[in-house]
Amino acid sequence: MLIQELTKEDNLNLLAHMHLGRLGCAQGPQPYVVPFYFAYADNHLYSFATIGQKIEWMRANPLVCVETDRIVNSEEWVSIIIFGRYEELPDEPKWKAERGLAYRLLQQKANWWEPGYTKTIAHGTERTLVPVYFRIRIVEISGHHGASDSPPLNDANSPAVEPANRQSIHDILEALRNRLFSK
Amino acid sequence: MLIQELTKEDNLNLLAHMHLGRLGCAQGPQPYVVPFYFAYADNHLYSFATIGQKIEWMRANPLVCVETDRIVNSEEWVSIIIFGRYEELPDEPKWKAERGLAYRLLQQKANWWEPGYTKTIAHGTERTLVPVYFRIRIVEISGHHGASDSPPLNDANSPAVEPANRQSIHDILEALRNRLFSK
Repeated sequence: MLIQELTKEDNLNLLAHMHLGRLGCAQGPQPYVVPFYFAYADNHLYSFATIGQKIEWMRANPLVCVETDRIVNSEEWVSIIIFGRYEELPDEPKWKAERGLAYRLLQQKANWWEPGYTKTIAHGTERTLVPVYFRIRIVEISGHHGASDSPPLNDANSPAVEPANRQSIHDILEALRNRLFSK
Repeated sequence: MLIQELTKEDNLNLLAHMHLGRLGCAQGPQPYVVPFYFAYADNHLYSFATIGQKIEWMRANPLVCVETDRIVNSEEWVSIIIFGRYEELPDEPKWKAERGLAYRLLQQKANWWEPGYTKTIAHGTERTLVPVYFRIRIVEISGHHGASDSPPLNDANSPAVEPANRQSIHDILEALRNRLFSK
């Protein structure tokens, strides 16, 4: 098994197929990680939630990390990590276009955003539902994939890698992508 | 669809079946999230990695968050969130028992820890492999599950919930668990 870095182009191509990720935020030294659904467009991840701990923490500290992956098993997987910045899309005229984009993107997969807007019963009390649209601006993105059928030991980002080997890495990534996304 | 809190007992029972999670750590205000494999025993998650960014960050700030889940779709899922503390298990006589436990737990699922100890080629250079055993001590655990076939609107943690309703919540969780883990 070999773990290899993905190119930025591969990261962004894969990201367009990803919708489930884990969003990390922090309050002081304490990190917090939650699953969330998103839609990628134009260097941002668009999403939707209700007021709660993650929204409150991201309002106070907008530095976040998003991890998204497809894991077939410990030997065949792809994982993308994004360092980004939380940007809220409030219901104000100047954010109308971005809110519209978020809404359209989130509508494309029916029902998938429902966990952000559903009844939660905690300690006998129904949680108040205040909808919040937000996006994560991608500041830095990196990705890795693991494969059991390893290519030659070359790095797709290295200028020393010959075109033939770059191609073989793309072929393997394509095959991995086909297997991962056909499930 | 309804989201409900799990009891601590249900969280720990489910955790024993979970092996893949996302580990969040932080350096200053910047969180970082990575996928990782673990084995639960006696209020700790045991794991294994090689020296790298997450180990360096956790050594400097041991406050972490682990999220683990089974997601069938946006309407049927279970997610557990742990606030914990990073504890390294160095190769020293006083940690022998804990390292032995970690090793035995990690051996139970053949190959699953390999991503922590495999060749990584980054920027044309092979990453140095320095094995690190560690565990996350669970300080706080909470879990939620979403289900489309909703039970009566009662909370399993509330003293006001009648035994019959507690039972129905357990039945639904059991059914969810069977569906989630039979895949």
